Amino acid sequence: MNDQASSRAGRSGGRNARRAARAAALPDHLRPVRPGMESKVLQVLSPQDMEQIHQTALTALEEIGLADAPQSGIGYLTAAGCTLGDDGRIRFPRALVEDTIAKANRSVTLYSRDGKTDLQLSGGRVHYGTAGAAVSMVDVHGKTYRDSTVQDLHDAARICDQLDNIHFVQRPMVCRDIADNCEMDLNSIYATTAGTTKHVGVSFTEPGFVKPGLELLHMIAGGEDKWRERPFVSNSNCFVVPPMKFATESCEVMEECIKGGMPVLLLSAGMAGATAPSTIAGAIAQAVAECLAGLVYVNAVKPGAPAIFGTWPFGLDLRTGAMSVGSGEQALLTAGCAQMHKFYDLPGGAAAGASDSKMPDMQAGWEQMCSAVMAGLSGLNMAYEAAGMHASLLGFCHESLILDNDLLGQAQRCVRGIEVNEDTLALDQMRATCLGGPGHYLGTDQTLSRMQMDYVYPDLGDRTSPKEWAERDKPDLIEKAIAKKEKILSQRSAARFDAATDMAIRKKFNIHLPA
Amino acid sequence: MNDQASSRAGRSGGRNARRAARAAALPDHLRPVRPGMESKVLQVLSPQDMEQIHQTALTALEEIGLADAPQSGIGYLTAAGCTLGDDGRIRFPRALVEDTIAKANRSVTLYSRDGKTDLQLSGGRVHYGTAGAAVSMVDVHGKTYRDSTVQDLHDAARICDQLDNIHFVQRPMVCRDIADNCEMDLNSIYATTAGTTKHVGVSFTEPGFVKPGLELLHMIAGGEDKWRERPFVSNSNCFVVPPMKFATESCEVMEECIKGGMPVLLLSAGMAGATAPSTIAGAIAQAVAECLAGLVYVNAVKPGAPAIFGTWPFGLDLRTGAMSVGSGEQALLTAGCAQMHKFYDLPGGAAAGASDSKMPDMQAGWEQMCSAVMAGLSGLNMAYEAAGMHASLLGFCHESLILDNDLLGQAQRCVRGIEVNEDTLALDQMRATCLGGPGHYLGTDQTLSRMQMDYVYPDLGDRTSPKEWAERDKPDLIEKAIAKKEKILSQRSAARFDAATDMAIRKKFNIHLPA
Repeated sequence: MNDQASSRAGRSGGRNARRAARAAALPDHLRPVRPGMESKVLQVLSPQDMEQIHQTALTALEEIGLADAPQSGIGYLTAAGCTLGDDGRIRFPRALVEDTIAKANRSVTLYSRDGKTDLQLSGGRVHYGTAGAAVSMVDVHGKTYRDSTVQDLHDAARICDQLDNIHFVQRPMVCRDIADNCEMDLNSIYATTAGTTKHVGVSFTEPGFVKPGLELLHMIAGGEDKWRERPFVSNSNCFVVPPMKFATESCEVMEECIKGGMPVLLLSAGMAGATAPSTIAGAIAQAVAECLAGLVYVNAVKPGAPAIFGTWPFGLDLRTGAMSVGSGEQALLTAGCAQMHKFYDLPGGAAAGASDSKMPDMQAGWEQMCSAVMAGLSGLNMAYEAAGMHASLLGFCHESLILDNDLLGQAQRCVRGIEVNEDTLALDQMRATCLGGPGHYLGTDQTLSRMQMDYVYPDLGDRTSPKEWAERDKPDLIEKAIAKKEKILSQRSAARFDAATDMAIRKKFNIHLPA
Repeated sequence: MNDQASSRAGRSGGRNARRAARAAALPDHLRPVRPGMESKVLQVLSPQDMEQIHQTALTALEEIGLADAPQSGIGYLTAAGCTLGDDGRIRFPRALVEDTIAKANRSVTLYSRDGKTDLQLSGGRVHYGTAGAAVSMVDVHGKTYRDSTVQDLHDAARICDQLDNIHFVQRPMVCRDIADNCEMDLNSIYATTAGTTKHVGVSFTEPGFVKPGLELLHMIAGGEDKWRERPFVSNSNCFVVPPMKFATESCEVMEECIKGGMPVLLLSAGMAGATAPSTIAGAIAQAVAECLAGLVYVNAVKPGAPAIFGTWPFGLDLRTGAMSVGSGEQALLTAGCAQMHKFYDLPGGAAAGASDSKMPDMQAGWEQMCSAVMAGLSGLNMAYEAAGMHASLLGFCHESLILDNDLLGQAQRCVRGIEVNEDTLALDQMRATCLGGPGHYLGTDQTLSRMQMDYVYPDLGDRTSPKEWAERDKPDLIEKAIAKKEKILSQRSAARFDAATDMAIRKKFNIHLPA
């Protein structure tokens, strides 16, 4: 474009009017982006592609089946109609799988603790959040990685709680300062729920840890009945070890969670080229087969139990065999999976928005946006790993959460899409502007009324001119994120439990986080 | 996911086999991404939306029309069937516009100088490149902006020439060290074409500059006949001043270019909320109307002349009135325009992949990827501004070109999409792997044969583990880009003209770039 076209409109008379208009905060229903917006505009798979993937998955379940089901699972699955082969593999008749798909829950509600941010998973409704599990914290100032702690986890939850574009908080890192696995699982629940009232996701290392976990959740909820009415924590279940093997213990965990009223995420995390076929279509087909097996399992334990179809295939860098989450291949894997969820009309989740970069740099920005926006445009119900995640899921960064809130705001603006109607087509405005009008649209009623509800403004992202930028001493994106993080963390979490509940919890459990 | 699933596969026995496989360079036709790959999988507009936009544009052309056509243009347009109103506006009968759309060129070839990188614009074939025009160079080391020069322009072309994922080089910045506008235009042509054999885009400030420009191009081509046979330079024509006014002089430039055999980009760069309606649908409708007017104009001058439908609406930050190119709204504007090009089956271009950030930081990464990948998934033939562009088109950065080559490689991987067939669905591999096989896919023939042709590997992007990263002294993305830039610029451009031609050019024109 030429210089004329790029001249700034900022000096016009519309500025005061715009200032006045934006002074009034928007009510929730007029906010430009919201959790659960619908989108299905990106279709990386054709209807024929999806049918082929479905048929491949059915054949794989019928002919290959899954090994290593626990004894309890063998019981549930054979009772439902599966067969147990001499080779120890459970095989799934096509009709059973099709019947299960037809009967399964089409909608899952993931409750928040305070009722303000419940997530309704169905259709093409999109939500973004964190997921696990990094083993390191990223220190952006020192440019170093160190072991993550329970305090880091609590702080991550507190930060997410303050960020509108992060809709749920699945435990993003491992508390490496807690040696005992059971204590670690229970403290992970405590630290996360004490940091946010948004929906929380956790996981259990062993089946025996679910019982005390549920006891803790009952206490937080104010009783088992209250917990069962609105379970505000779901369980992330790596129920398979791809390719096509049940994760024996994790399946037992899953059974306990279902009985305890927790929604489960059926997580199949194959790696294309290692634990899944190297082709995108093959990795999706295998993940779909595995999750369909999980769906049959869940519905055999308890018909209609809330389950999230968690096809999470990851990419590999085949040059080195290292996992890679920031590639175009990853974005396609996730977008394709999201479409398969729509194909089955089942609530689903996958990984999107993570980076291979070690720091929140330009690489992190492009990698995260690529899969985050494609996941959203594909209508992925739950975009896990969408905030804070670096180093191919090994590192977690508090500052990145804050930056990702900006990134996800723009991605969600894309998810919202384009409204086309007589009003937005603006022919009347065009007429009024061009035929004897001012020749520009600045300060028109239509422009002013839409400036807040149509546009997503960045919080930290910089849109100043080079001149203004220099006058403001060239603000650094990372420094701004650090400052915002410190501000959030300087305040005590509003999600903390009341004193009596907290005391009772601490009496019963060894809580590591200071009161 | 759990730690088990995230364990690295890098120590497996497949590594040596993979090393051997990747040692052989791939022939061009097996490269994972290529210029001109087809995509139409993202459809932010429904068929009904597009029809409504089309009808709005037709009505706007019929009832509002465009002001300020030059005398010559009035002649061409009224002869074609337009009417000139008492208000000086040219109005376009619906039937004339529809007829022009039906008869216009459905395909444009943008030639390269050496014949190796010609671009075929049609259908949903996607190409990425630079565009203008920044007035400043970004110094990433010093974190400063300074006036851009003819040497900067030449260097930008040299860098682009070496980067596979940048497919054309439209003059990205203004030579501010050349005061005379005609000399600047001619030196811009020289500096860009002397830096790359890829297709080049330029622009002319005044109609009188086209003649010497063509003389220069004839000399570079080796004669007018050779130039006309394969015009390797196109002209970027801001032929309108939105809303709905012809840019008088620029139209005269356009007429000269058409007569001289140069393909033209019909560039309509309205700003939503200032020179176009603030709504995305309205901004697209107006841009479409303006480009349809341009299409009628071009075809009235010379039926079938090669023209690119350049709907380039930009976003504004309505809080400040500043232009914004890195928002979700921008990505939607561009994706919607790309779809309108498909609606008309006309070769088209729009802006994608630019950033508002002043530096190549995380914000730049997410902003650039958002619109770049959405443009590609929408099948945009020419994604202009897709590399190197910062500060809402005010600043250009050589290092960013190199980083963007990585970014665009991943975006193109997404454009390539998912191949679904019996081979990629990999049911046989699944069987062989799971039923008595090794239980993983590492080192299988299928994995090895696809590791280069299916996967795009980053050049600068880092995928090491935190441990390896620390062992390598924590390589910095920007420093790596600087090193690569310096390596490229340490070599003389292979695109330079032969000595005799260069001497003749320098005798006739005041060339600022040292010989």
